[in-house]
This record gives sequence, structure tokens and C-alpha cells, in this order.
Amino acid sequence: MVSQLDADSALTTLEPGLYAAQITDRWNIGAAPNGGYLAMIAARAMADMLPHPDPVSSTTHYLSVALPGPAQVHVEILRSGRAHSSAIARLVQERDGKTREVLRTMATFADLSQMRGPTDLRLAPPELPPLEACFQGRSAGTFAAIAAQLDMWSAPGTVSWMEGGERNDEPSLRGYVRLRDGREPDALSLIFFADAFPPPAFNLRAVELGWLPTLELTVHVRARPAPGLLRASFETRALVEGYLEEDGQLWDAEGKLVAMSRQLARAGR
Amino acid sequence: MVSQLDADSALTTLEPGLYAAQITDRWNIGAAPNGGYLAMIAARAMADMLPHPDPVSSTTHYLSVALPGPAQVHVEILRSGRAHSSAIARLVQERDGKTREVLRTMATFADLSQMRGPTDLRLAPPELPPLEACFQGRSAGTFAAIAAQLDMWSAPGTVSWMEGGERNDEPSLRGYVRLRDGREPDALSLIFFADAFPPPAFNLRAVELGWLPTLELTVHVRARPAPGLLRASFETRALVEGYLEEDGQLWDAEGKLVAMSRQLARAGR
Repeated sequence: MVSQLDADSALTTLEPGLYAAQITDRWNIGAAPNGGYLAMIAARAMADMLPHPDPVSSTTHYLSVALPGPAQVHVEILRSGRAHSSAIARLVQERDGKTREVLRTMATFADLSQMRGPTDLRLAPPELPPLEACFQGRSAGTFAAIAAQLDMWSAPGTVSWMEGGERNDEPSLRGYVRLRDGREPDALSLIFFADAFPPPAFNLRAVELGWLPTLELTVHVRARPAPGLLRASFETRALVEGYLEEDGQLWDAEGKLVAMSRQLARAGR
Repeated sequence: MVSQLDADSALTTLEPGLYAAQITDRWNIGAAPNGGYLAMIAARAMADMLPHPDPVSSTTHYLSVALPGPAQVHVEILRSGRAHSSAIARLVQERDGKTREVLRTMATFADLSQMRGPTDLRLAPPELPPLEACFQGRSAGTFAAIAAQLDMWSAPGTVSWMEGGERNDEPSLRGYVRLRDGREPDALSLIFFADAFPPPAFNLRAVELGWLPTLELTVHVRARPAPGLLRASFETRALVEGYLEEDGQLWDAEGKLVAMSRQLARAGR
């Protein structure tokens, strides 16, 4: 059985370097498909063209809002070396008779199973209470179809805008996440998971609840994840005149760092 | 008088979207031009094509080693909107009769003087001793032409591989920096400064001193810097089987956060 995420990011090869995709509304937040879901589609097309399987660094710039429906992905190979290969993908949609570019992703791939070298890790997995002490769900109040696809548990006090009281002005979020249909995480899906949680900036009273459009999302996949729940932490340390970064870490069920992410987004106007 | 950095990153328009550049050896580290210098050339070409002046997010993938000498920059505009515009630049060199791509940069520009919105900053400028208590210079021991272009002071204990004793296994570096010829920092040059310090990972005994090739560098320019010394901090929290991130912050002389950076690099093999 194909998982929902894989079915909804499946590609049909039209010609070498050109793929048809079908963006569904199952990963929507409000009316717009989630940015991590879209970036994963682009990465999947690149993975199909490149000799290395793992997107160790991918950056997506969001150029216009996507709509559920047909899309095409164009892939250009930039380099194909022994240890690394790089590509650019363009995701476009036809709209009102015009071709509209939704996003562009640039990425470098490697084979993470072949990594060899020194290790020195100064980070630790996020401290999380047991599942039953966490706040479950994604978005209480906001319509988000994506919530039906995910099991998500957030540490108390880290999603204060959903917890019923005042927002607590602590712009960090920690939690567990998995796909509800049991599909285990892999390197490619970490790009999706890096953008799956709601913004920790929603804990800030100065930030309006609503849509914080992402201008750019970069994900470093650092290891292939083991099966099981991912542990995630996200924080926004620099909201400056409406621009904010959001830094994320994803850890697998065995306590391994599997991804680091950073995005630049826009609040207010 | 034109500053050395501006002279060495100057562009000649050959046709719309195509520029000639002259990469000099004055920004070399060993035999290779510094990656931040090269990324700044690409950003300068994009700034020339776009209606917004400030590269709020730029990501460069390094595809092959540059050589001092002539180069060309090709710019493609991805989007040109009211608040933001985006482009991709390709920096190429002719070598052995073939065109070789050195790097590709994707960036989104804005006008930082027009930013309006909430501010909530959880970061503080790096704590630094006075200049006279700092370790001066860039690279003692390694040949780096770039050292002649910069005044650089590093906090004691943060460049332990240059300080004469054992390396201290603390992968963080803090310091002051400016261009020696008095050219003041601006938004574009922050892309250069984000890669100008040596890697804090050199404090780790597990990392061989030498070249840590950057696969990808992302710089978020968060404000236009005031004149004067920049304060910088860089740290590597995740060296895993030879891949490492390096996170940086740049603060201006007035104590304002002006850039955040992250790169993915490779140590050993």
C-alpha cells in the first residue's frame, strides 16, 4: 500500500528532466498547500535525476502560492560528481492560460550511507515529556487539512496559542511527529517534516495568528532517520520588523540528529 | 577611490543579464578564491538586475573550485514583485576550452529600509573583550592573501589553533572585522563577511587543519549595517561523520543584528 505522502508527491516522467505531479489539498494549511510538501515534490524529482539519493542541502524559494491541481517539475542537473551531485528544480502550474512558477529548489545530494569522517555533536535531542502529557493536534481553530495526515504532540507551553490561555511570548516549540498512516520517515520526507509544525512565532503576542509566508526554506538532511516518531524543535530568535528566521532540528527515534532547517518568513506588513 | 572589494567584484555588462567579472587572487585562501567573495560577485550581478537592493536571503552552492582570472555571471530573474524579487546567478569560467560552472546562487531581494512589522529579538551581540585583548590576524601559518585585506580580531580562546597551545575543542569563534582599506560594510558585503572568518571547527582536534570545502552557504541579511567594526560569532554544533554546519551572526557597530548565516561543509574524507 502506498502511503498518502508518497501518493500525493508521486511523479510521472514526461521526458528526461520533466515530470508531472498532482498537488492535492490533503496537505493544505488554509487554502494553500504546505511549503514542505511542495519542496519534497521538487526534491523527489531531483532525486530521480541524480546518482545520489540523499538531499544533504536543499533550499527552496517560494515564488507564488500553489493551488491543488496539476503541476510540472523541470529539473536541471548542475553537477554530478563522485561524492555529491547538485540540481535545480522548478515547480510550475498553469493558471488562467499562463505558466506560473510556484517555487524553485536548489539542492546538493550525497549518499549518507557512505559518509566517513570525524563526529563532534554539541546538540542534544529536545527534552520532551511523555506523549500523554503533550498537547495533541496541529492547529485547533485554524483549518488545516494537513492535521488529518499527521500525528503531532507538542510539549505543554510550547503551543500556547492553542492551549487556551494567554500567549506566552516564548517563541520555541518542541514535539513529536509521525505520519498518521504509518509511513516511516526517510531522508526525502525530512524536507516535509521540517515545515510541518506550526510556527513557534505564534507564541509571540506581537505576531498575528494567520499566515506567515515563507520566503525561503533550507533543510540540511544529516542522517537517514530510523523508523518511529521524530522529535522536533523549532525556534524563532530573530523577528525584526516583520522578518523572522525559524530554526529547526529533527531527531529520530534512536536519538540521532537527522535534519537541521532554517527558514526566512514574513509576519504582518 | 574605489575600495579593493568593490574593484575586485566589479562587473561589466555584456548584454542584459550577462556580466563579465575579474576574479582576483587578493581574496584567496591558499590557491582558491574565498567563497564569500565569489558569492558576493553573484549577488552584485543579481542586484543590478532586480528592483530591490538588499539580498535578504541568498544561497550559494559551490560546484567547482574557482581560479583567479576572468569569469562570467549569468542572471535569470525568477520573480519581480512589489516587496520582493528573486533571481538565480551562475558564475562560470572558461578552462581548458570548456565552460565550467563555479557556483550557482539563488536569492530573494527586498528593500530593508522599507521593512515594517513587529520586532522580538532573542539574540544578543557576541561578548567580546576590547580589541587590544584579542588575537589579531586571520590565519598565522596558512597562506591566505585575504588576510592582507582584512583587519580581524578574535576573542582569546576562540582561535586556539592559532594561539600556540593545544586546540581547545570549543568550536566557536567570536571577533571583530573590517576591511583594511576603510570601505564600510553594506548589505551586499555581508555575504562576503559571513564567510571571511576561518572555520571555528579548526578548534576541534578531530578536524584536520586545511581546507573545509563549503558545499552550500546561506546568508540572511537582516538589516543594513552602520559604519564601523562588525562583531561576528560563528559556531559548529553538528559535525557528523565529516559533514558540518557552521552558523554565523554578524552585528554592526551600533549593536544591530545585520546577518545570520549557515553553511554546510565537509571535513576529511
